[in-house]
Amino acid sequence: MSVERPFVRPHLARLAGYAPVVPLSERAAAAGLAPEACLKLDANENPYGMQDGVRDALRQALQETGFGAIYPDPDQMELRAALAGYTGLDASMILAGAGADELLDLTLRAVLAPGSAIITCTPSFGMYPFLADLNQLELIDVPRGDGFALRPDALLEAVQSVRARGVDLVVILTSPNNPTGDLVPRDLLEALLNGGATVMLDEAYVEFAGLDASAQALLSVQPRLIIMRTFSKWAGIAGLRLGYMLATAGLIADLAKVKQPYNVNQAAEIAGIAAIERRAEIGEQLAAIRATRDRLVNALAALPGLEPLPSESNFVLVRVDPAIGSGRELHDRLASVGVFVRTYSDPLLAGSLRISVPRADQLDVLLERIAAVL
Amino acid sequence: MSVERPFVRPHLARLAGYAPVVPLSERAAAAGLAPEACLKLDANENPYGMQDGVRDALRQALQETGFGAIYPDPDQMELRAALAGYTGLDASMILAGAGADELLDLTLRAVLAPGSAIITCTPSFGMYPFLADLNQLELIDVPRGDGFALRPDALLEAVQSVRARGVDLVVILTSPNNPTGDLVPRDLLEALLNGGATVMLDEAYVEFAGLDASAQALLSVQPRLIIMRTFSKWAGIAGLRLGYMLATAGLIADLAKVKQPYNVNQAAEIAGIAAIERRAEIGEQLAAIRATRDRLVNALAALPGLEPLPSESNFVLVRVDPAIGSGRELHDRLASVGVFVRTYSDPLLAGSLRISVPRADQLDVLLERIAAVL
Repeated sequence: MSVERPFVRPHLARLAGYAPVVPLSERAAAAGLAPEACLKLDANENPYGMQDGVRDALRQALQETGFGAIYPDPDQMELRAALAGYTGLDASMILAGAGADELLDLTLRAVLAPGSAIITCTPSFGMYPFLADLNQLELIDVPRGDGFALRPDALLEAVQSVRARGVDLVVILTSPNNPTGDLVPRDLLEALLNGGATVMLDEAYVEFAGLDASAQALLSVQPRLIIMRTFSKWAGIAGLRLGYMLATAGLIADLAKVKQPYNVNQAAEIAGIAAIERRAEIGEQLAAIRATRDRLVNALAALPGLEPLPSESNFVLVRVDPAIGSGRELHDRLASVGVFVRTYSDPLLAGSLRISVPRADQLDVLLERIAAVL
Repeated sequence: MSVERPFVRPHLARLAGYAPVVPLSERAAAAGLAPEACLKLDANENPYGMQDGVRDALRQALQETGFGAIYPDPDQMELRAALAGYTGLDASMILAGAGADELLDLTLRAVLAPGSAIITCTPSFGMYPFLADLNQLELIDVPRGDGFALRPDALLEAVQSVRARGVDLVVILTSPNNPTGDLVPRDLLEALLNGGATVMLDEAYVEFAGLDASAQALLSVQPRLIIMRTFSKWAGIAGLRLGYMLATAGLIADLAKVKQPYNVNQAAEIAGIAAIERRAEIGEQLAAIRATRDRLVNALAALPGLEPLPSESNFVLVRVDPAIGSGRELHDRLASVGVFVRTYSDPLLAGSLRISVPRADQLDVLLERIAAVL
């Protein structure tokens, strides 16, 4: 044994880490604007914020002397009962976590031994490659093709090829996908599952497509399907950290033993239950976001040099004509007028920007500012 | 590859899981009492609850439209700055997590490869064996001796013996220890570190002994020392999940890359910063808890058949004369009169109970109820 200081293991020391987040106040100052005059459209948060009824539930909880001081319920009984009502599934098929992020890691860590594989289809959520590195999993990418469409044959082939090597694998798909906004075709999902693959389907944004777009009905017949959901997007509580997963009762029971006992904090638990109770009111926000998204797509398509992709989510991926500049360059010009959008280092997306859908009342300002920097 | 449903890996499927937590309302009903008439003294929470100033900070935050809706800062800049003020250490030596639980797991996961070892000294915190199982670490126990005292020679010998096998290891010590309440002797800690061992020192309860009892001054000269702290105990926010760790800037920088980006929720961040600002007021609670603890120890010692250990923490371990019954039996009798304390399955503790220190105004009721069931 070395007598040197403790170091992290080599596969972790190599991790790139993420770029520091510049506070909104500093970014606003750089644009010469007040923070409230800026449009933060880089993280797909709910632009309407936490719904008033959810806020009231937290305010009410703060009146209780015990609030916050007692450990949360490791079994998440009340929260899982509420989620059972929300999803229509039995509570035994549901487990909550500190955002879907925790559950993605927990599941991969618990199910796959180091040296196993995950298959992803870039461009997609940046957390998946991170989790592959963290869990020493082989990352097999089957990049999307023309128009960022999934390539079913290539994906099914990749699965067979990994299986032929005797390597355990999980296919991770995102529906709607971040950042391309499209749903995973149901027949592809079924083909993968029927072919013996375990599929982790990340439905973080499914409420923007409508819950009818969820694959959860397959859970009763497809034990290899694992669905991830979050309250960060639709329910406007990204800051409180709440996600959940849907899977067989057997897998959920095992993961419940493996998770941190107190993984869901009490504020998230209260806000999550309240959001489910207020889903009708939040549904009005979602309807407004969908309408604004469609107006945004149409307006962007009418601007010279911008090509928005259709979206089932609360963001729009926009391809930028190189004559205007790279995605990064347009990102910087937008930042200079107080519009903060998402740009990517992935070469596949060097010519693209992702814009989160703003509030309806912010759309005109957004479009004006975009037009001003083209 | 199997085409069966996904299962967790064998070493995880074997985990025992924890016993379901019966809600306080149900336990109170079983005792025929209102929940407020019961004494929940089983989880070492702060009996005074969240301090009013901390509560006000959360109330204030709820007024802001953006509260909760935006992702937390992955770099934890404000929180780490506040913790730097609280600890007197540079922010580069501090990382916050969702309770110390998350950071214990993160650190062991990141530093030790499967097959490495942790050395513990039971009886101690039950999370350590769980984390050994989770991370496929060999668990080497050097049980405490007479009066539950650490056995320095046996511990140093165990370290040398593991090192001789060429196995990486981390020694986990708890100061004050849960449930025995004693501090780790400074000379033992230094002997371990000087001998080349990495020591993870869990100071979850150190505020009850006074921050002078912390080993943090050693950090500047002992790069193998890692200190874990929490806000769950002293600051009364166990439900919000906030802990932090102190280590070399190098290790902290690497762990910051490995952690979940949004691991600390916004409510915990706000409450943690507010608790640091209100540390003088919370210090009055801590003084009251210490005074009540000492009164509790003296009163228990005067009762026939009970032998309380001295404690530097906010709980007291009590040995029960077998003539009265086992720890479990006395636990059940106390539960029947609305006093909920901690009992253990560990044979070392079969004849003991752990009682969290109540509020000063609850002490007489506690002592009456204990006397009534002896």
